[in-house]
Amino acid sequence: MTEYKLALVGFGGVNRALAQLIAERNDSWKNELGFTLKIVGVTDLFLGSVIDRDGLDAALLANLPAVKGAFAQLPGGEAIALNEAVIKDSGADIIAEATFTNPVDGEPATSFCRWALENGKHVVTTNKGPIALHGGELKDLAQRNNVAFEYEGSVMSGTPVIRLARQLLAGSSVVGFEGILNGTSNFVLTRMEGGLGFAEAVSEAQALGYAEADPTADVEGHDVRLKMVILANELLDAKLNVSDVSCSGISSLGLGDIEKARQDGARWKLIGAATRHADGSVSASVEPRLLNHDHPLAAICGATNAVSFATDLLGAVTVSGPGAGRTETAFALLSDIISIHQSVAHN
Amino acid sequence: MTEYKLALVGFGGVNRALAQLIAERNDSWKNELGFTLKIVGVTDLFLGSVIDRDGLDAALLANLPAVKGAFAQLPGGEAIALNEAVIKDSGADIIAEATFTNPVDGEPATSFCRWALENGKHVVTTNKGPIALHGGELKDLAQRNNVAFEYEGSVMSGTPVIRLARQLLAGSSVVGFEGILNGTSNFVLTRMEGGLGFAEAVSEAQALGYAEADPTADVEGHDVRLKMVILANELLDAKLNVSDVSCSGISSLGLGDIEKARQDGARWKLIGAATRHADGSVSASVEPRLLNHDHPLAAICGATNAVSFATDLLGAVTVSGPGAGRTETAFALLSDIISIHQSVAHN
Repeated sequence: MTEYKLALVGFGGVNRALAQLIAERNDSWKNELGFTLKIVGVTDLFLGSVIDRDGLDAALLANLPAVKGAFAQLPGGEAIALNEAVIKDSGADIIAEATFTNPVDGEPATSFCRWALENGKHVVTTNKGPIALHGGELKDLAQRNNVAFEYEGSVMSGTPVIRLARQLLAGSSVVGFEGILNGTSNFVLTRMEGGLGFAEAVSEAQALGYAEADPTADVEGHDVRLKMVILANELLDAKLNVSDVSCSGISSLGLGDIEKARQDGARWKLIGAATRHADGSVSASVEPRLLNHDHPLAAICGATNAVSFATDLLGAVTVSGPGAGRTETAFALLSDIISIHQSVAHN
Repeated sequence: MTEYKLALVGFGGVNRALAQLIAERNDSWKNELGFTLKIVGVTDLFLGSVIDRDGLDAALLANLPAVKGAFAQLPGGEAIALNEAVIKDSGADIIAEATFTNPVDGEPATSFCRWALENGKHVVTTNKGPIALHGGELKDLAQRNNVAFEYEGSVMSGTPVIRLARQLLAGSSVVGFEGILNGTSNFVLTRMEGGLGFAEAVSEAQALGYAEADPTADVEGHDVRLKMVILANELLDAKLNVSDVSCSGISSLGLGDIEKARQDGARWKLIGAATRHADGSVSASVEPRLLNHDHPLAAICGATNAVSFATDLLGAVTVSGPGAGRTETAFALLSDIISIHQSVAHN
């Protein structure tokens, strides 16, 4: 039986949900997945950090109060985040990085990934920043150190997108894709179809926990733009930077636009789209588009996300599912670990 | 470089399209997929058979006239189908079985699969009969002989469904699913929404090559029922027989029903659904269902197919894509071979 030693970097909703899954399911994973997980370290800028090479109690971690310096309550715990020690010296095989996305420079998450990869540890992450802004460097670093760098959860939480395209569509080239990749903006558009004004719909999204206090990144397309960089570089072999992706959001749409679309049998959706051209170049954009009801993305409502791949042998293949959620995103980390286990077990 | 020796059993549209892909892409597969394919035998009840352990010319095969006994034109070819010799004695590593689906007893395809597996050859197939009617026996046979038995193309042609659920959703149990799994009936319903009567829509589907001369199996749900047996047994660990799946088709729907649904903001779809209950039992049905426009399957129009999986950690994950087509189904065989290569390369 394989046991992977895991260090959790960032202990917000996602890694806490992963700890909860480990507490509840580790035993059943023995048979179902062929491995178990042992948490040997946790670090979080707000909660502090703790290391125990013999293994921490996952249930205890999952239920720890979310108060500043809470890890100091645990044996050997500290009120401060000893990030470097947890990443480098906890004896972890795998680092689960789930800190906040910094869209400017990807820090501190990028440094966390670098430390882990340089020290021969696999990295699984749900963080868009490191991949969108430093993906090429980090992939090279992982390869040089013969470890895995997996980030299925950076796009559409646990819904398989990157692995679907790379593994299951191998042999039928992906030549482009379009997606609904932000749950907040899609929820807002869906509620506007129900008659709510833009501001009211945003408030409702905030009340439901979909939208941040500052919803700009969601409704202006900045969040989708990061995901487009990740997907285009991964699936179309592009080398796009964030500034290469044209971007406009949904805040310019009014109820009149929504109603006119309805009368025409259509719907406004915030669409991220990328295409590889005949000369090999790739262009990508984020913008509101009018879709008629027969479009594969037209029925994607509320906070659901979806990507439709254009492929050379199959034509359009579309996957939809949750784009956010703590447990859904924690599953993405688990699916990355499953993928690592399969390649480790086979080598 | 790995080269797999391939024997093609049945040389209708699907295996002919596979021969065409081999003719066009074998060279690029060296780098892209890490293997090449060499056709060492072909057999077909109508065309005859041919064996060449040194490799047949894939382009020549793909362009062979579809006339009775045509393989006799080739060096070493025969006007009769020496199925057993091609399967057992052509030196093939992999048998690509793409004969017609026999919904009564799965023959002769099931015997072809048995011969191959018993003789230590991997089998890839697009044929629903052997898996729906004899899946358990054939899977056991494959395991005992330490070879692969892959059938992604038996449901939704090359669109990843079985592998998506088994590999990429591993860890988030599939507890049920519902699908639009017959392109002809979905095309007919879509055309009826456009105002055509049932009989006219069926005629149009026949003219376009979607529907058989006898469309009963498509419009009465029998085709979907076979696919439900395959998916329920594969994904829900059920042991269903065809007679366990209740089945009613779309021929009872009239234009009045379609129009009434439209007025209610809904759509009729032929839905195959399966659920695992708390006691572990699995029930499955095929029937027309009224879906509102927000249902993940409501926007699946024309000949497109889709499956929506209910999973415990992710909720609903839906995949849509082509459900038929020669090249699309040939890609399913290729994707099965890619899967075999990955497990062989890793062991």
